[in-house]
Amino acid sequence: MRILLSMPPRFHVPGLVPDDPLIDLPGEEAHHLHKVLRLGAGAAVRVFDGRGGEWDAEVVESGSRAVRVRRGAMVAAAPEAGVAITLAVALLKGDKLDEVVRDAVMLGVHAIRPFTSAHTEARGAARARSGRGRWARIALASTKQCGRAVLPVVHEVAPLASILAAPEGQGILLAEPAHAARRLADLGAAPPPSAATLMVGPEGGWHPGEVADAMRQGWTILTLGPRTLRADAAPIVALTAVMAVWGEL
Amino acid sequence: MRILLSMPPRFHVPGLVPDDPLIDLPGEEAHHLHKVLRLGAGAAVRVFDGRGGEWDAEVVESGSRAVRVRRGAMVAAAPEAGVAITLAVALLKGDKLDEVVRDAVMLGVHAIRPFTSAHTEARGAARARSGRGRWARIALASTKQCGRAVLPVVHEVAPLASILAAPEGQGILLAEPAHAARRLADLGAAPPPSAATLMVGPEGGWHPGEVADAMRQGWTILTLGPRTLRADAAPIVALTAVMAVWGEL
Repeated sequence: MRILLSMPPRFHVPGLVPDDPLIDLPGEEAHHLHKVLRLGAGAAVRVFDGRGGEWDAEVVESGSRAVRVRRGAMVAAAPEAGVAITLAVALLKGDKLDEVVRDAVMLGVHAIRPFTSAHTEARGAARARSGRGRWARIALASTKQCGRAVLPVVHEVAPLASILAAPEGQGILLAEPAHAARRLADLGAAPPPSAATLMVGPEGGWHPGEVADAMRQGWTILTLGPRTLRADAAPIVALTAVMAVWGEL
Repeated sequence: MRILLSMPPRFHVPGLVPDDPLIDLPGEEAHHLHKVLRLGAGAAVRVFDGRGGEWDAEVVESGSRAVRVRRGAMVAAAPEAGVAITLAVALLKGDKLDEVVRDAVMLGVHAIRPFTSAHTEARGAARARSGRGRWARIALASTKQCGRAVLPVVHEVAPLASILAAPEGQGILLAEPAHAARRLADLGAAPPPSAATLMVGPEGGWHPGEVADAMRQGWTILTLGPRTLRADAAPIVALTAVMAVWGEL
């Protein structure tokens, strides 16, 4: 885990053309370089394509109409996790999901799938329409800050059933110990999967039928010990816990 | 991990007299029962002593001058962690430490030691005087919510050196991979200690001399993988990670 930010500022350029040394930064990234960070010609930066490629670069032009950098040598970005973990997370009250997106990206999540379930707050669902664009921006900002060169996707809000029916990789649902759940150590005893979907419920908890549905569809029901966690802390705690026993930290 | 709150409201009575069935709740707890939750005579509650004892109880009087309950059978509180972990955490900007205290208590921390170090924000240090009372209240509220009957202590803000000199149990300092640090798997490979102090630094990171001091004094330097975390997410991520490899989750 790095806490100090010692790397040069990083900019996301999704449409990087191979072998073209001169790169025009897209709108928001140009704004960030020129207006927010106020970098001028000669400044050392990095560009990454969001799919794992990252390069040193030098600013050659910084203005309100165009920001252009010259790409240098390829560099090693922060390595990706070995298990591609999709975090399926229930809509939470207020802007609580913003922090979850930010920290999950920094931990190394592969993708984020917000969902609605029986006990999801109606207000949360109503806010979700405006959420996806904001979560995508937060995911990008976090990716830039944490040193990853892969940009995790934040998917459209979906109903629980559609995620239960088709998890990416091993489906793991976090539940209370009352359900016949497996402990974290059981999860760690098996070899890590290549991909997993980790699902964390809303403030209101699961409807019992939802957990039964998940079990019927082959999901692993996981519990994380005897103490009660806040719903908005649970996603990051659960993600950290499975990454820890899978040797990702 | 429980997310639903299915237990009756819980009240902290530090001075419980053995064998006395009638208990007067102290000031703030009485206020919470009578004014906030508006419980009346006959309501089912629980009382706990903050040292591990918990009992069913029934409200017999609920008024602005006195709140009295009748203690019933002893009940099993949420079990405590096997490793008594003290979280030593640098002062953070704004009220970021409030959330750390709340979630650390819910995860099952034994005690919290806020500290100042070379790169601690001066404003954080100035706010710390008012902080301790607030953090103690947050710790109590979290203890009541998460089902623990042991109330973790939030210590006075101390300088880093005093904690480095005398950790409770095994000293573990979270640092960047640049330091010759051990990985989480190394920590998990050894038998868990009976007690540990887990130390997490400020936004500004460690002064190199601080990490050197810790190493000289026998601390384990731990790193949590290659991606950068926000300083205010790092304490809970680190706490979860060590609890995961020590089999506490």
